Amino acid sequence: MLSTPASAADLPSLRASIASQAEAVRSLKESGASKEALAPAVKELLELKGRLPEGDPDRPKPKQQKKKQPPPSPAAASPADASSDSIVPRSQDFSQWYQDVIKASELAESSPTRGSMIIKPWGMKVWDLLKKDLDGRITEKHGVDNAYFPLLIPKSFLSKEAEHVDGFAKECAVVTHHRLKADPADPANLIPDPDAELEEPLIVRPTSETIIWSSFRSWINSHRDLPLKINQWANVLRWELRTRPFLRTSEFLWQEGHTAHATGEGALEDARKMIGEYSQFTAETLALPTVVGVKSPSERFAGAEETYTIEALMQNGWALQSGTSHYLGQSFGKAFDVTYQTSDESVRETVYGTSWGVSTRLVGALIMTHSDDAGLVLPPPVAPQQVVIVPIPGKKEEEKAAVGKAVDKLAGELRGKGLRVKVDDRDWIRNGAKYYEWERKGVPLRIEVGPRDVAKSQCVLKWRKMKEDKEAVGLDDVAAIVDKGMGEYHDFLLQSARDRLAGGIRLDASYEDMKGLLEKDEAGAFDGAGLFLVPWKCDAANEDKIKEECKATIRCYPLDVNEMGMAEGKTCFYSGEPATHMALFGRAF
Amino acid sequence: MLSTPASAADLPSLRASIASQAEAVRSLKESGASKEALAPAVKELLELKGRLPEGDPDRPKPKQQKKKQPPPSPAAASPADASSDSIVPRSQDFSQWYQDVIKASELAESSPTRGSMIIKPWGMKVWDLLKKDLDGRITEKHGVDNAYFPLLIPKSFLSKEAEHVDGFAKECAVVTHHRLKADPADPANLIPDPDAELEEPLIVRPTSETIIWSSFRSWINSHRDLPLKINQWANVLRWELRTRPFLRTSEFLWQEGHTAHATGEGALEDARKMIGEYSQFTAETLALPTVVGVKSPSERFAGAEETYTIEALMQNGWALQSGTSHYLGQSFGKAFDVTYQTSDESVRETVYGTSWGVSTRLVGALIMTHSDDAGLVLPPPVAPQQVVIVPIPGKKEEEKAAVGKAVDKLAGELRGKGLRVKVDDRDWIRNGAKYYEWERKGVPLRIEVGPRDVAKSQCVLKWRKMKEDKEAVGLDDVAAIVDKGMGEYHDFLLQSARDRLAGGIRLDASYEDMKGLLEKDEAGAFDGAGLFLVPWKCDAANEDKIKEECKATIRCYPLDVNEMGMAEGKTCFYSGEPATHMALFGRAF
Repeated sequence: MLSTPASAADLPSLRASIASQAEAVRSLKESGASKEALAPAVKELLELKGRLPEGDPDRPKPKQQKKKQPPPSPAAASPADASSDSIVPRSQDFSQWYQDVIKASELAESSPTRGSMIIKPWGMKVWDLLKKDLDGRITEKHGVDNAYFPLLIPKSFLSKEAEHVDGFAKECAVVTHHRLKADPADPANLIPDPDAELEEPLIVRPTSETIIWSSFRSWINSHRDLPLKINQWANVLRWELRTRPFLRTSEFLWQEGHTAHATGEGALEDARKMIGEYSQFTAETLALPTVVGVKSPSERFAGAEETYTIEALMQNGWALQSGTSHYLGQSFGKAFDVTYQTSDESVRETVYGTSWGVSTRLVGALIMTHSDDAGLVLPPPVAPQQVVIVPIPGKKEEEKAAVGKAVDKLAGELRGKGLRVKVDDRDWIRNGAKYYEWERKGVPLRIEVGPRDVAKSQCVLKWRKMKEDKEAVGLDDVAAIVDKGMGEYHDFLLQSARDRLAGGIRLDASYEDMKGLLEKDEAGAFDGAGLFLVPWKCDAANEDKIKEECKATIRCYPLDVNEMGMAEGKTCFYSGEPATHMALFGRAF
Repeated sequence: MLSTPASAADLPSLRASIASQAEAVRSLKESGASKEALAPAVKELLELKGRLPEGDPDRPKPKQQKKKQPPPSPAAASPADASSDSIVPRSQDFSQWYQDVIKASELAESSPTRGSMIIKPWGMKVWDLLKKDLDGRITEKHGVDNAYFPLLIPKSFLSKEAEHVDGFAKECAVVTHHRLKADPADPANLIPDPDAELEEPLIVRPTSETIIWSSFRSWINSHRDLPLKINQWANVLRWELRTRPFLRTSEFLWQEGHTAHATGEGALEDARKMIGEYSQFTAETLALPTVVGVKSPSERFAGAEETYTIEALMQNGWALQSGTSHYLGQSFGKAFDVTYQTSDESVRETVYGTSWGVSTRLVGALIMTHSDDAGLVLPPPVAPQQVVIVPIPGKKEEEKAAVGKAVDKLAGELRGKGLRVKVDDRDWIRNGAKYYEWERKGVPLRIEVGPRDVAKSQCVLKWRKMKEDKEAVGLDDVAAIVDKGMGEYHDFLLQSARDRLAGGIRLDASYEDMKGLLEKDEAGAFDGAGLFLVPWKCDAANEDKIKEECKATIRCYPLDVNEMGMAEGKTCFYSGEPATHMALFGRAF
């Protein structure tokens, strides 16, 4: 694709690639590279510049460029490829940048089914890594058992818990027939067979509380059966009008935990423990810091008495609800008549419940937290490849052999450390294009190994973020350095995101301040007003008014500051009445 | 539940438990146990016998039994429990036995959604272990990437591949609306909102060829993009009239691999490689031997040019198709216009495809291959717990401490070997009930540790199958013995199943022989006529006639005997014409 002229949309990322390649040439020169060793890097630089628009001062003379250019490879000529790597800068259009990063990194793409996306291999591997880590925490650390419940839920189940049906029944996929048949009017067309209409429609699960609690009824009999802790990894579907990949799609993948307890205290403790686990998990695995809090009554899950949330701050200053945990009280216990016999045999009590979940939305959180104008940035625990080694084979056979041997040894050593390593030895792709591709895909570390490196018993490291410069490292030390570096890289991403979160929360803003700052915030804007931590008197009507006036909602009442009693003695920033909570306001996806 | 009288259906398993407990008492006596040490085992034996029907000679005197009986624990009094552990013998009713084993081992249960089952934690863990193993083979060994495609497929997609629509469009769940609303006539009732009818109905995927091939069209451009190998772990749904848990449910879990290749040879080779992998996987992981073969034209997958299959033999003599791999030729390539540019740039060719899948049906295969009248039997690779340690704490505090210490050490050593170990220290369940429960659930090995064992620095091993007798083993040697024993146990299960498969295939039967033997075969019967390997002239009309006359189908043309040319020179056992294949006939689930 480097041989096709760049479109206007391509330009910013092309310029970034040119700068990066120019830097590579410079550092090669500085390290005393011979003309021969320099040639491939210079060639790439010229080719990159050749994609600049006609008349651009950095564009090389046509003739010179043409002579050096190899015939385009079939892959490079792909129209799909040519359009897939352009990324609009965040500052120009944050929403478009988000879509572009997903496309350029090949995480996902839109599907022929309205509102659903296709998760491509790179995105699937990120999700599978995330899932494996979280599953271990859920099952081994918290003693929850996985199970699987039906996709389709009888319509009548949804009506059992009154609030729940209000919250969920509205927009969902309804199965009404169990057969298609050829249309008598046009046999090439298929229609739902009128003879195969279901007596009771089935709903594609928007969440599984109802069907799981109907099982709990027969699974729970004695206090010995409690707590009962079940988790399900599943696809769910909520019909959405406006969708964005990962953030909001009609169908999405998630885990949903459902627990039943003998006491309200036990259930509440579990709901809080799980939101704590989510917060720890997102930090440790996704380098994603969050504010842990409780939702205001109007933002609670349908059927919950308390909803805990982790809220993350995206690079445009908007919040993203990244996981929730609900204390259900006895709502589902009563709706599904789930009781247990206490140790006093004559007494039966209704059980208390929780539910908690995170979804593929977390991949959206990852993207909007760490990525930049060059593409995706991934923390090592969920990077499908953590290291890509690009061998620069040289021209002589003995050079090729030496590079090949060094690369094999290096890859083996890194894999021995448990790292996921890709050796990109495709001989039909130029080095610059490889660098550019793996940058877009967010691989934490690139290692280049050329003949001169081997001669000096070294290789060259380039981190995707954290360090601007390449660094030459001795081949004997590289495995240990990289292993340690991966941890530092994760810490760097986490600390950067923590700094942004801390800097993105304003304290002591007046309502007028907040309103004024948020007015400037548009959906596509970058680096917006952020979040506002303010004293607040809990009041649903005022909450609605603010939502109308500022498009801002209460993301949560953060647990830490509220438990410290920070709201005490303060007056509500909106009503002027005594504050009941410190509330975190902001715009949200 | 031991305190409730056994129903007639319970009797066989009750007698098995009594025999096992009597054996335990005998071996305790033989090992010189004191009266005190013997007492708990004797008590359990008496309690078990107490469940025998009135008048049974083995039933103890009522008074004596009553005196010894502790108050029933709440869990034991559960009506759900009391009915969940009875297993009809295979010889009495094989179908009922299958259902009983699933219930008694808590693998799964029926759901409120017609035709779907609930996979309970024990069954889920079996599936998750199976899945993890197979996923490694698919992704790491065969270089296939996981991805995820939408659950709902536009109706029009199904019509694109003509044969495919005939095979799949008929019985599937059709989504016609995207919203429910309160019924104006009865606001407590919900109805599909007529204003939310979809313009084009969506189908819950019965399989994903259509939507995946529509993506392949944009993913494949050059020969460099081939082969493209994608796998998806997903739920699928095919509306089924008669369902059986795991074997045939409307919704089921599976993996579906889809590959695209530049040449027909490449695709065919891949289809065969994957059926070979399935065969290896089922043997190595599930101890399930299979016959690898190719389907007759009338049994092919809709849209395939060749369907490969692995067929297993269940204990009732019926075959179970356990995995299939399809060579699709260019059918989907043409239907979805998927072409690639060859290395000669001026030429574009249509790609060739394969698809292959296994499902939760494999859990059904496991059950019907290894399990017995006492319940589930699991090969170690997919046993949620491989070892259960039952501490028999004794009465004195120092005995309890010594047993606890020995058990902790033992569990740690076994876990250090990578084994999944459960310590069953529930103090409200009697030992006999524990033994009985873990036997039902198929745990390969039980280890008992009592005070006298600790004094002798030993413990007692009881394998679920393989060895009838308990064996005392020194505590210092037990970890190594168990580790080695797990492999032997797997080999024992595999070899037993291989012997049954080899013995279950009749050679050189005449058609009249086969018909006569199969006539005696009923659905619920145990130890049926088995399979028939016969010379056959490929003929769909004759195949239909045999199906009608014998309820038998061609399970496959086994690859090995056909590649050896075994059919050459033989005449068809049905038509008398020259044989084209050796065919494996039999009844099947």
